[in-house]
Amino acid sequence: MTLICVINPNTARSMTEAIGQAARAVAASGTTVVAVNPTMGPASIESHYDEALAVPGLLEQIALHPGADGFVVACFGDPGLDAARELAAAPVIGIAEAAMHTATLVGRSFSVVTTLSRTAGRALDLMHRYGFSQACLGIHACEIPVLDLESPGARKAVVQACRATMERDGCDSVVLGCAGMADFCHEISLEIGIPVIDGVTAAVKLAEGLAALGLRTSKRLEYGTPPAKKYTGLLSGYTRP
Amino acid sequence: MTLICVINPNTARSMTEAIGQAARAVAASGTTVVAVNPTMGPASIESHYDEALAVPGLLEQIALHPGADGFVVACFGDPGLDAARELAAAPVIGIAEAAMHTATLVGRSFSVVTTLSRTAGRALDLMHRYGFSQACLGIHACEIPVLDLESPGARKAVVQACRATMERDGCDSVVLGCAGMADFCHEISLEIGIPVIDGVTAAVKLAEGLAALGLRTSKRLEYGTPPAKKYTGLLSGYTRP
Amino acid sequence: MTLICVINPNTARSMTEAIGQAARAVAASGTTVVAVNPTMGPASIESHYDEALAVPGLLEQIALHPGADGFVVACFGDPGLDAARELAAAPVIGIAEAAMHTATLVGRSFSVVTTLSRTAGRALDLMHRYGFSQACLGIHACEIPVLDLESPGARKAVVQACRATMERDGCDSVVLGCAGMADFCHEISLEIGIPVIDGVTAAVKLAEGLAALGLRTSKRLEYGTPPAKKYTGLLSGYTRP
Amino acid sequence: MTLICVINPNTARSMTEAIGQAARAVAASGTTVVAVNPTMGPASIESHYDEALAVPGLLEQIALHPGADGFVVACFGDPGLDAARELAAAPVIGIAEAAMHTATLVGRSFSVVTTLSRTAGRALDLMHRYGFSQACLGIHACEIPVLDLESPGARKAVVQACRATMERDGCDSVVLGCAGMADFCHEISLEIGIPVIDGVTAAVKLAEGLAALGLRTSKRLEYGTPPAKKYTGLLSGYTRP
Amino acid sequence: MTLICVINPNTARSMTEAIGQAARAVAASGTTVVAVNPTMGPASIESHYDEALAVPGLLEQIALHPGADGFVVACFGDPGLDAARELAAAPVIGIAEAAMHTATLVGRSFSVVTTLSRTAGRALDLMHRYGFSQACLGIHACEIPVLDLESPGARKAVVQACRATMERDGCDSVVLGCAGMADFCHEISLEIGIPVIDGVTAAVKLAEGLAALGLRTSKRLEYGTPPAKKYTGLLSGYTRP
Amino acid sequence: MTLICVINPNTARSMTEAIGQAARAVAASGTTVVAVNPTMGPASIESHYDEALAVPGLLEQIALHPGADGFVVACFGDPGLDAARELAAAPVIGIAEAAMHTATLVGRSFSVVTTLSRTAGRALDLMHRYGFSQACLGIHACEIPVLDLESPGARKAVVQACRATMERDGCDSVVLGCAGMADFCHEISLEIGIPVIDGVTAAVKLAEGLAALGLRTSKRLEYGTPPAKKYTGLLSGYTRP
Repeated sequence: MTLICVINPNTARSMTEAIGQAARAVAASGTTVVAVNPTMGPASIESHYDEALAVPGLLEQIALHPGADGFVVACFGDPGLDAARELAAAPVIGIAEAAMHTATLVGRSFSVVTTLSRTAGRALDLMHRYGFSQACLGIHACEIPVLDLESPGARKAVVQACRATMERDGCDSVVLGCAGMADFCHEISLEIGIPVIDGVTAAVKLAEGLAALGLRTSKRLEYGTPPAKKYTGLLSGYTRP
Repeated sequence: MTLICVINPNTARSMTEAIGQAARAVAASGTTVVAVNPTMGPASIESHYDEALAVPGLLEQIALHPGADGFVVACFGDPGLDAARELAAAPVIGIAEAAMHTATLVGRSFSVVTTLSRTAGRALDLMHRYGFSQACLGIHACEIPVLDLESPGARKAVVQACRATMERDGCDSVVLGCAGMADFCHEISLEIGIPVIDGVTAAVKLAEGLAALGLRTSKRLEYGTPPAKKYTGLLSGYTRP
Repeated sequence: MTLICVINPNTARSMTEAIGQAARAVAASGTTVVAVNPTMGPASIESHYDEALAVPGLLEQIALHPGADGFVVACFGDPGLDAARELAAAPVIGIAEAAMHTATLVGRSFSVVTTLSRTAGRALDLMHRYGFSQACLGIHACEIPVLDLESPGARKAVVQACRATMERDGCDSVVLGCAGMADFCHEISLEIGIPVIDGVTAAVKLAEGLAALGLRTSKRLEYGTPPAKKYTGLLSGYTRP
Repeated sequence: MTLICVINPNTARSMTEAIGQAARAVAASGTTVVAVNPTMGPASIESHYDEALAVPGLLEQIALHPGADGFVVACFGDPGLDAARELAAAPVIGIAEAAMHTATLVGRSFSVVTTLSRTAGRALDLMHRYGFSQACLGIHACEIPVLDLESPGARKAVVQACRATMERDGCDSVVLGCAGMADFCHEISLEIGIPVIDGVTAAVKLAEGLAALGLRTSKRLEYGTPPAKKYTGLLSGYTRP
Repeated sequence: MTLICVINPNTARSMTEAIGQAARAVAASGTTVVAVNPTMGPASIESHYDEALAVPGLLEQIALHPGADGFVVACFGDPGLDAARELAAAPVIGIAEAAMHTATLVGRSFSVVTTLSRTAGRALDLMHRYGFSQACLGIHACEIPVLDLESPGARKAVVQACRATMERDGCDSVVLGCAGMADFCHEISLEIGIPVIDGVTAAVKLAEGLAALGLRTSKRLEYGTPPAKKYTGLLSGYTRP
Repeated sequence: MTLICVINPNTARSMTEAIGQAARAVAASGTTVVAVNPTMGPASIESHYDEALAVPGLLEQIALHPGADGFVVACFGDPGLDAARELAAAPVIGIAEAAMHTATLVGRSFSVVTTLSRTAGRALDLMHRYGFSQACLGIHACEIPVLDLESPGARKAVVQACRATMERDGCDSVVLGCAGMADFCHEISLEIGIPVIDGVTAAVKLAEGLAALGLRTSKRLEYGTPPAKKYTGLLSGYTRP
């Protein structure tokens, strides 16, 4: 049995449930998916500031699930990914990371369709960090806030943004730039005729794969368990495995 | 049921069998692995020349397995990968590609330990092409020819090369640069204490993942089915799905 | 009058004072330096994990100093810099950023001497992010923990690490990779005969310069004030200017 | 006397003759040009698949001309170039390589006008591999299949594509992305007023230059003669010099 | 007291005076600004040719001001910067360098608005050399010759070019690509609502900063005082400090 | 008849003669080589400063040879190349440019062996500018001043430096980093067994090639004839073709 813990780093419980459903829909028969979110932090992540304040609660969830065989950080900014890799014994996958890697397996190039344009800078940083500066042809916003993705009309607007992106960039596939778009994925692909990649589901498969291969984060250097030290105030550190 | 066709691009049948075994050892319960090799071409691939002459036979195997849900090209030069993606309806994964992607999920950096130093140039090209110029810290040869990897003593020499690489490069993980090293993988990892990644097994899991996600090579542009045309002589083209 | 708020992101008060002294030593006559540290978080920052848990307290200090004309984030990982730029009305400078920029004004190349080797990955990320992949020839650790930099013997070990770095890398200057090394700067430069750059003092001068030029963080796009939203639990967000 | 063997990798004899004529038109008085094509393979190269199946026949031609002082691979995908360099004693030049190098000697930047857009990915790979990521401003297709370049109207369409490229990209020169465009070169340059570079003629001059300098492919490492080995089936390997 | 010598590399005295005024307007109370120009060379710099012929006179001014604590090269091509760093004991800052560095401190990205499009290639070279290939989103010309910047109407045209650049590139700030635009800086920023950076004033603050930090050009290797040697003819070399 | 004007940018007449001899030795039967040097400037070029003061005299030589079909700038720093391209009607080739381009035609990688280590920075800039950041594995100095290359013993020291470079870098070829090494080229290649490339001879062949192809510098944008303008003092500008 493989236990994958999917962490929605914001505190919107309905979004956590939707993410959990998307994850379970692709999980292998022997996989159990647990979908959680922090008890503290922002209701949605739409800025570097939101992201920074989401990370402590995210790390707490990692500490609370020592039995997981893999973690998925289900926000397209991959917040706290490096810290999570230090803290967790099991491998940790970010959904931007997962979606970008997966996209390059089904074509030379991809473009990203994200929520607000102010978040494009973070996606750009990740694109460079993961090595996809050439593969990624563009990062475009549909200007729908994260929590409005559930509203009627959002789906259609995202489809339109994906189609426009495909035509403008000439990309081989489109990467959806928000965990809240996970359940639009197949529909958009059918509509525009090229692969559309959602990071939540992509990350679940990568995490299952690592578990099957017996691979975990290298603990020798940078990602070794963080050194124990004194913590002051509210943020007093979380138990480490 | 998911059918993964693993193609060893050389004609060494014993190597094909070993690759098949390694692939089956990590395959999910619902996956069937078929391991094949070309009926024409070189007995092992240790030069650009060998690689070039291996590709037509490799493409023939793709054409002969139209029912596969995914293909793995099991040679670290990822020979013919672009052509295979055009020809196949199902996704195609190269083992260098698979190993490099997987390595970056368990650490910031990796180094490659390959067979002969003359093949390092090809690995370098792939590293750049896939976006891992920063993640890959070095490509090192153990100077053991491909078909000698089965001989006694080879395993020990590869372990030593991996350990030396880890110490010199300070890499988070080691990628094995030949399909013939697939079954050394776990042992080396235990010996040197960091993740060691074999591309054959990594590629099987990526191919399974794509199948589960319903993702296939984008056929809109570059990887569309090749245009039909007149072929002359022995190489008269292979049926396309 | 120019007010520069220097924030030591860890909670070690003695280090905050030393940083404040170093900052005041180079400040212009019309500049007032306030040196503060968070009330919550780790006593020192030596991992991605520490960094993540230091950021909320750092952002709180930004919110508490709305009258500052410039902020300095005095930890070489430049933690929370993007979030701070969103939150603050005044410009914000990280000390890695400041030191790297300054180093390129006095030579073609520099190398970094930092504390623990596990922090080199973060410095590498910043080097790429700021555009200094070619200018930076190496990032080397002296393996002295942050809080041990005040102990006798530390200074000598850092000098030795700087000299070894200069000889191995052939760099034009050395960048000190920790705010705790600020007061070693001149001494090391005298000993090894090339410029040695400390980020705290460099950042103070850059912040003063921006203030004199009337330049502030561009608020049009990515670094606009973060959108107001609901915060849950302990991390309930900080007032924004 | 210098013998340059120009190999058209497709089997279209009329195209081979046109390429030979273009080559002879620029050859020095002491140079003999032999223009050949494979006896097996595709009639034109418009996909990775075509390219892969063209290479064995191309390599056979190299083996059949051991007395050549230089080889030109006259297809803009530079198919089999690495393998040819291993096999040949004399230097080998690809026409994409030749055209791109030559373009950077007459301006800072160039753009490529090629046949079908599906071949742009290969040109992109070559551009990166040869080091011209900054010099190359764009790769554009005129959407005329290779063998239709001889038809009336093609010339005019290529001129229009070159002019549009010049105006859109602001490039200093235009590189023609197909050997079949060789004889349009001067006319287009006269029409649009900037240098237009054809790879076939450029490659002949580079090959002559290497011969005059006494330079051949370095045989020490990667491009050493491929190791002898057992070949099975139709593709049984070609004699090596 | 800090003495900053600002060198306008062209021989237009009115431009030198305007540059001196701009420099003094931002200088600290303890700073004296001397603004000079060569006695030989072109009246304005609008080509590589002009730049090359401006450098000897520029270097002469450096040799004539041995007491300076810092030099500013006030032409956006940063002509002769490397040579000046060898010659001068004090640090030397180019205005393109200064403006680009400063721009990255107030946003992720910037674009340049320069005079004639023929000078964009030089700005591109500097952008790459200084490490700002990712930060710089575009280099655009307003097609106003340098000496016409003082004419009525020029200011308005530059404002329009800056606004168009901001809208097209989505940049966080605009860098002014000519010393002759120095006094438009604040007005343009007020009009378009994002930071606008002039290199002359930015360079003065960077030079003051280096002086306060006690930092000078590293003299150990590349920028050591040039070796004494025989000079022939008019250009007989300038005294070195 | 093709007239190639080879300009040694320093004023050492014996070096000019040696360069002329090397050039003539590889020139085609229909080529006339004229070797000249400036009447003013430094006796050798070993710093950015020397280079800057050599350029005006170099440009004067270009203006004095309006009938040339091609120019070669015979100093490995390629001084004044951009300015020369603006000024000349005929194409202009730098010897670093020529050597680096040529090296990549006979192998994947090269290293440079130059004179003094202080000149390596310039070579590094050219390497990046020409696109050979990946192809160039190292730039190493033999620490022999330019004018001492003619002394007994120099040849042996350069051979040793080339051999050491080959062994350390594993490069496919060695590029000689000074025009004064031109006549060592064949001997070193024979001794170390890999291609050794001299820029003077390489440039002559490239210039002949461009002439045969009818290609000249693109005059549309950056390299158009410099705008006429007022020049003051000794450097009063040179007639332009």
